[in-house]
Amino acid sequence: VIRPLVQCVPNFSEGRDPKVVDDIAGAIARTTGVAVLGRTMDADHNRSVITFAGTPDAVAAAALAGVEKAVEHIDLRRHSGVHPRLGAADVIPFVPVRGVSLADCTALAHRVGEEIWRTLGVPVYFYEAAARQPGRERLENVRRGGFEGIRDAILHDPSRHPDIGGPELHPTAGASIVGARKFLIAFNVNLATTDLAIAKQIARTIRESSGGMRYVKALGLPLASRNQVQVSMNLTDFEQTPLHTVVDAVRREAARLGVQVAGTEIIGLLPRAVIESAAGFYLQFENFATDLVLENRFETLE
Amino acid sequence: VIRPLVQCVPNFSEGRDPKVVDDIAGAIARTTGVAVLGRTMDADHNRSVITFAGTPDAVAAAALAGVEKAVEHIDLRRHSGVHPRLGAADVIPFVPVRGVSLADCTALAHRVGEEIWRTLGVPVYFYEAAARQPGRERLENVRRGGFEGIRDAILHDPSRHPDIGGPELHPTAGASIVGARKFLIAFNVNLATTDLAIAKQIARTIRESSGGMRYVKALGLPLASRNQVQVSMNLTDFEQTPLHTVVDAVRREAARLGVQVAGTEIIGLLPRAVIESAAGFYLQFENFATDLVLENRFETLE
Repeated sequence: VIRPLVQCVPNFSEGRDPKVVDDIAGAIARTTGVAVLGRTMDADHNRSVITFAGTPDAVAAAALAGVEKAVEHIDLRRHSGVHPRLGAADVIPFVPVRGVSLADCTALAHRVGEEIWRTLGVPVYFYEAAARQPGRERLENVRRGGFEGIRDAILHDPSRHPDIGGPELHPTAGASIVGARKFLIAFNVNLATTDLAIAKQIARTIRESSGGMRYVKALGLPLASRNQVQVSMNLTDFEQTPLHTVVDAVRREAARLGVQVAGTEIIGLLPRAVIESAAGFYLQFENFATDLVLENRFETLE
Repeated sequence: VIRPLVQCVPNFSEGRDPKVVDDIAGAIARTTGVAVLGRTMDADHNRSVITFAGTPDAVAAAALAGVEKAVEHIDLRRHSGVHPRLGAADVIPFVPVRGVSLADCTALAHRVGEEIWRTLGVPVYFYEAAARQPGRERLENVRRGGFEGIRDAILHDPSRHPDIGGPELHPTAGASIVGARKFLIAFNVNLATTDLAIAKQIARTIRESSGGMRYVKALGLPLASRNQVQVSMNLTDFEQTPLHTVVDAVRREAARLGVQVAGTEIIGLLPRAVIESAAGFYLQFENFATDLVLENRFETLE
């Protein structure tokens, strides 16, 4: 059997002191069965994002270890930044990569949320697929007012109470917002023109919000340094709307407007299934299965 | 570092007694660090092929274990079949899959060849990239005359002497022909027509032997059960002439002749690099690297 793989992308409310972020990332990286895949810090946001992946149990343990370090180091009473935040460990999404479902990740989110309250005394809200109350699917609804606003609102408004623990927030670590969502692909198509109107027109044609393809968000942006323009996209469900379908749609619309696709860029990482299904689509395989790839077969048998 | 992977595809001169083939395959499969990927037996050829892969040292040990069982069970004096053969363990090619070069596989072939002679007393010829004498690159040259013919020729013709051991053949196990070659992709394109002349025309256009693309062998064949015809291909160097380039060429030539590609089929397995480069080509990635695939990154870090 192929080993199941979950990604976790926790956001922590520290973007200035590398020692704190090192300590959080170190606790995650030391957990057996996970690999840290990426890390960003932003001083203006005063926020960091650590991307890691592993088997479900390992990812749960690593997430908890990271939250523990964040609770130890971060005091929200002394934290400021332009990005809204509610907790020291602010947002903790679990993302299926392979061999696990969104429902599995929801169960994982609930388990980790219970542990965060039980072992660290930090209350927890659940969002997106893990939401337990209507209206909490959207992160911005849960986080409206931030640490200071929610701390006060809780005193007179039961609708703002956490899903687990509390009702008061942790005095220094606030609350954590734990959830499950599908894998997000960030992807740009660069166009061989300087005409921004064309990138904006293509973005409008393909994105869901203006009647295009479902699960596609798109913006037209200038790329001054390259003398090109770009259609910058997020794909929020690559199984329903595959990357190759979106690239084909952009290419067709660009051709209709008399412009060539200069190239494309992946931001971050892609699940292997995206690459295999694009190759299968293009090469017109009748019999493709993931175990026709020699290395996959070998991995399965390990 | 990514673990290096070698494939080995030994051909044994037994295609009728499943117990013998089970014993050979079992000896290979029990070797730590290899996985058996496939196995075929043919009663008319009286020959079996076992495909396995693993790290270079594990593959060398498994190949030797398989040859030992073949030498133990197979007596060529009592063997007949329509396929030419020189040895109980007849042909043993080592094939780079990833993280190893053809030169590495040549060194592996030489090492295993020395061991076959030293531990089993079976002389060895080297072929393809591992050939040590001019004219021995081609398997059919080395094997001309088969077990009986070469056994007699050796007595008066030093040019037929083995590269290692001998000069007489092993009385029951003959000699083994050990080599290194690139990965071979067997691939079919099915066409939405019953006109065999079109499949033959496309095969002629794309194959190296009639002036087409290098490293491509192609034949036009009927597929009576499907009411289609097929261009059946072998690609002998997918790094020099990629699969996606060949599929595009077949598609263009088919379109020129007014015919659609109905679908394609992989025979056997594909290295992951084939899939990744097809996806990268089609999606026009500017920044693709194998570590942008989440699972690959994870594997590397393990």
